Amino acid sequence: MSDVVVTLPDGSELQVERGSTVEDVAHEIGPGLGRDTVAGVVDGDLVAAAEPIETDIDLEIVTDQSDEYLDVLRHSAAHVFAQALGRLHPEAELTIGPWTDDGFYYDIANVDLDEDDLDAIEAEAEEIIAADLPIERVERPRAEAIELYDDNPFKSEILETEAAGEDPVSFYEQGDFFDLCQGPHVESTGEIGGFSLLETSAAYWRGDEDNETLTRVYGTAFPTEDGLAEFLERREQAKERDHRKIGQEMDLFSIDETTGPGLPLYHPNGKRVLDELSDYARSLNLDAGYEPVETPHLFRTELWKQSGHYENYVDDMFLLDVDDEEYGLKPMNCPGHATIFDQHSWSYRDLPVRYFEDGKVYRKEQHGELSGLSRTWSFTIDDGHLFVRPDQIATEIETIMNTVFEVMETIGLETELVLATRPEKSVGSDELWEQAESQLRTVLDEGGYEYGIEEGDGAFYGPKIDFAFEDALGRVWDGPTVQLDFNMPERLDLSYAGEDNEEHRPVMIHRALYGSYERFFMVLIEHFGGDFPLWLAPEQVRILPVSDDNIAYAQSIADELDGFRTEVETRSWTVGRKIRAGHDDRVPYMLIVGDTEEADGTVSVRDRAERERDGVSIEAFGDHLEHERDEKLTSPAFLD
Amino acid sequence: MSDVVVTLPDGSELQVERGSTVEDVAHEIGPGLGRDTVAGVVDGDLVAAAEPIETDIDLEIVTDQSDEYLDVLRHSAAHVFAQALGRLHPEAELTIGPWTDDGFYYDIANVDLDEDDLDAIEAEAEEIIAADLPIERVERPRAEAIELYDDNPFKSEILETEAAGEDPVSFYEQGDFFDLCQGPHVESTGEIGGFSLLETSAAYWRGDEDNETLTRVYGTAFPTEDGLAEFLERREQAKERDHRKIGQEMDLFSIDETTGPGLPLYHPNGKRVLDELSDYARSLNLDAGYEPVETPHLFRTELWKQSGHYENYVDDMFLLDVDDEEYGLKPMNCPGHATIFDQHSWSYRDLPVRYFEDGKVYRKEQHGELSGLSRTWSFTIDDGHLFVRPDQIATEIETIMNTVFEVMETIGLETELVLATRPEKSVGSDELWEQAESQLRTVLDEGGYEYGIEEGDGAFYGPKIDFAFEDALGRVWDGPTVQLDFNMPERLDLSYAGEDNEEHRPVMIHRALYGSYERFFMVLIEHFGGDFPLWLAPEQVRILPVSDDNIAYAQSIADELDGFRTEVETRSWTVGRKIRAGHDDRVPYMLIVGDTEEADGTVSVRDRAERERDGVSIEAFGDHLEHERDEKLTSPAFLD
Repeated sequence: MSDVVVTLPDGSELQVERGSTVEDVAHEIGPGLGRDTVAGVVDGDLVAAAEPIETDIDLEIVTDQSDEYLDVLRHSAAHVFAQALGRLHPEAELTIGPWTDDGFYYDIANVDLDEDDLDAIEAEAEEIIAADLPIERVERPRAEAIELYDDNPFKSEILETEAAGEDPVSFYEQGDFFDLCQGPHVESTGEIGGFSLLETSAAYWRGDEDNETLTRVYGTAFPTEDGLAEFLERREQAKERDHRKIGQEMDLFSIDETTGPGLPLYHPNGKRVLDELSDYARSLNLDAGYEPVETPHLFRTELWKQSGHYENYVDDMFLLDVDDEEYGLKPMNCPGHATIFDQHSWSYRDLPVRYFEDGKVYRKEQHGELSGLSRTWSFTIDDGHLFVRPDQIATEIETIMNTVFEVMETIGLETELVLATRPEKSVGSDELWEQAESQLRTVLDEGGYEYGIEEGDGAFYGPKIDFAFEDALGRVWDGPTVQLDFNMPERLDLSYAGEDNEEHRPVMIHRALYGSYERFFMVLIEHFGGDFPLWLAPEQVRILPVSDDNIAYAQSIADELDGFRTEVETRSWTVGRKIRAGHDDRVPYMLIVGDTEEADGTVSVRDRAERERDGVSIEAFGDHLEHERDEKLTSPAFLD
Repeated sequence: MSDVVVTLPDGSELQVERGSTVEDVAHEIGPGLGRDTVAGVVDGDLVAAAEPIETDIDLEIVTDQSDEYLDVLRHSAAHVFAQALGRLHPEAELTIGPWTDDGFYYDIANVDLDEDDLDAIEAEAEEIIAADLPIERVERPRAEAIELYDDNPFKSEILETEAAGEDPVSFYEQGDFFDLCQGPHVESTGEIGGFSLLETSAAYWRGDEDNETLTRVYGTAFPTEDGLAEFLERREQAKERDHRKIGQEMDLFSIDETTGPGLPLYHPNGKRVLDELSDYARSLNLDAGYEPVETPHLFRTELWKQSGHYENYVDDMFLLDVDDEEYGLKPMNCPGHATIFDQHSWSYRDLPVRYFEDGKVYRKEQHGELSGLSRTWSFTIDDGHLFVRPDQIATEIETIMNTVFEVMETIGLETELVLATRPEKSVGSDELWEQAESQLRTVLDEGGYEYGIEEGDGAFYGPKIDFAFEDALGRVWDGPTVQLDFNMPERLDLSYAGEDNEEHRPVMIHRALYGSYERFFMVLIEHFGGDFPLWLAPEQVRILPVSDDNIAYAQSIADELDGFRTEVETRSWTVGRKIRAGHDDRVPYMLIVGDTEEADGTVSVRDRAERERDGVSIEAFGDHLEHERDEKLTSPAFLD
């Protein structure tokens, strides 16, 4: 047998016999590592320890100290769930049960489960874990596998698709349970320290709405009970901060089946937040030399055919017929901006030209995929498009980076960066790609940014920088992208006259500060748990008269605080109840005014952290408020 | 023969024999009037002097001193055109040729006319006028009329439709020319003092795109040459101010067949103007207690069926199918706002609730009807909807009136008002209508407004006040409407809890300040001829360095004028050419800076009226600019 070369994470190379398993290699490195091996990562993919190596590969050995161990453990937890399910609901048909970032799920047919069922299954699973059953890989002849799944159409289908031609077929078994599976798995069920079933939802076989509806059971698992407890607490916090829940409590927005799913209506409180965000972006854009434009929502699809969007997006487009011509709601703002650019003749001295627009776009997600503001049919991008000379890329990218970081610092979101470079299939000359990528690297390096690189992960039409932000609960959300584009200027035949008087192609840059307002609003609601910074808060100050006699005084203060979003609480409630209502509505400042305050011409201030201060002059409070708003503070010091 | 009663404009009544003509009645009033009679206005309709009177009527005698005389004269001018056309192009088939507000047109088939043809026809018409041919009404037996038009399918169709059953049929003749016609006409062609053919366009028979394309010839006529000369001069001015022409010159917007007809794209210069208008409306709205909302552009048509818009607007709606359900682009913002209102329980103390939104709506006009920004498929309404108690109508209407007048005074547009009251068919109780109409009248009367009344001309769902504005050329444009609505709250089942704890229906008020941005922008462009007041001007200041050596100084001034839309002219042109370019671009202020200014730290100011002042300090100019912008001045005094 010939040898293959295995490259380890430290760069060292090992010659091993073709057909050796991951575990064999680990043993060769050292008997301790061999014993501890749970799985391997081969060329980026998590595989079983028993996986044979047939070609030269990159290999990382996974032990219970590796990051990937959690995935393996959760994969085994999915099997434990399936085993417990089978004991209590033998009629259930298993389909697939992968691990996820948060745990695992298993999609099953032919069974309906309520909360009590989940509790019972969880208890059964705990027993399986306590029994510490060994988990073993078993290979069965193909014919036997087909026979075994004779009455399960889903597993039968998998045997004919993903596992087509495999013989023998890989199974994993624990006690009386077996499952068609490539692994990897931990060694025994007892390795699972904490196990919990979370919820059920509906799912479609293969994720396709035309197929059977299945029951998806979500669960999670950890090596320790503490890990599970921490996870469950975070999950509870996340639920409390769910933007749909807070959106309703604070009366920010609604989505209504009568008006249309995936099509949010913004109520006054929500629209005030959006308007502040939009005004902020506008002032940053104008300062950075962007010019405002406005493009229609409806376009002849002819434009999308020219731009190339049609072939890629037609299935997600809302199309309609007008006078026997095909029109569509725009899925993108860029071709509209390019159309405006194309109405002029430009000289090299005119570039860069920078347009911006809060542009609403439409993409037809599957009905079942829609979810609050995170997945909608219509969403508004704070969209910017630049038309630049190739030598201007660095300067423009630098400004964009600074602006995005300014926004994220203002909001208080941690930001991560990834540079994605030229993929195998791409348009544009070698020279252009090299010039563009080297400018991007220079900006990132000279700016002192920390960033990851995903080689070959750029779009076919240009390299990009992806932003992601981490919220208060440590969750990471997709942020905006800065995307270079060599393709659209070509397809739409955009040009400028160079110093040589010849026609040249500009490079387009697509960029946003927030991304989509819908998505960003969702992140903000959950990040702040509805406690928006003052500048964004829909209601900034609420004045609570102690009795109805103080209403006129309260009103006079509201008048003095002109320019702030101020309400006077006129309901005839006790002060305590008024304060609770203000707290529930997440108003940053409550001013309590009774006879004492009225006599002194002062207010008692109470902030959202329940700090209080009496006898504050209205002028002092107004100054404080103005400072906090204009500086866009997120954690203001209390009044001095 | 029995008598009928004729009521004259002064209210006096005359008994005349049934079958008497208008002219007979005039003779009865006095022989002088009888001689001067050109036509009559019977119950509001202009009719021939020979028209027999068969029932009791209101009658006004038209002489050459009446306003209506111009219509009659132009009707005759249309016949003169047709006669001249027939002499030069005997193959042309006449269809219809009515008078209009500005003159007349005649739609003709089977002929193509260029400018030279029009000149020749106009010369021929002048001869017909000089010949002073008598114009006479002639009645022909129906059979003869049908025979006469045997080879003209259009006139034949008229005989079978409008003139169905008429026998004898009314014709008018002059010299060798005759035309199927009800009149009225002047007595002879010589009464036309000024005659001009203006232009041709395409038209459809019966205005229907499915019918034949015809050639429409526009012309005009006046009793005197002076009248014509004045008209032609105004027309030339209007052409100079045409918003499509200025829109291109100033690079404000474009409409493009590739992206879609009737769907404007706003370029940076246009969008800056729109943004200023929108910001102004927003600040007025917020001051008046309106709350911002945002609704989708796409709705399930279910909502429009509930609101009643579907049955009225379906033919004008852009419809599409989404997952086998019917959706539409919104033709109106109101049902969306009502949906938001309906998400709450309201108490009588919460009312009025006032929402506003720059809401883009879509109405499918016929392709041929689209014209620049005045008729578009999509337009944005600065839409406001109020939900009020019936007793709050007066206060709210008063505020709205004040705001609309504030806007129109700021812009400098004269505003006219009409109150339209309950029509025969209407919804809502007598009590509600009386309460509403009396509140509207009180507001108008107590506010000292001049207004017309159109009895019975309100919408079926409520009375309204229509605004119209008169521009710098004296043209009158439809402005916004304040519309009370008793119907939509009923159809969408909106309610609030009254003081009696019972459910009550609010009244809705629809209102806008501008109407549609598209239409208003068009009026502004034409009203100002592109010379926007400073606060609206896309580019407010342009700095012209005398030589390239002064560019740095020019740039430093631009930096000092931070907050104004300022450009530095860097093209290497002569100062004269730079000034001409600034003039063409309609920049309100040009600052010319050479070595002298640079040495003194001053600027030479040149305004759009070509007034100049040297040695102005930058601070003084900045103050002047700030005052002019912030006060939204339209005719600023020059720098002191």
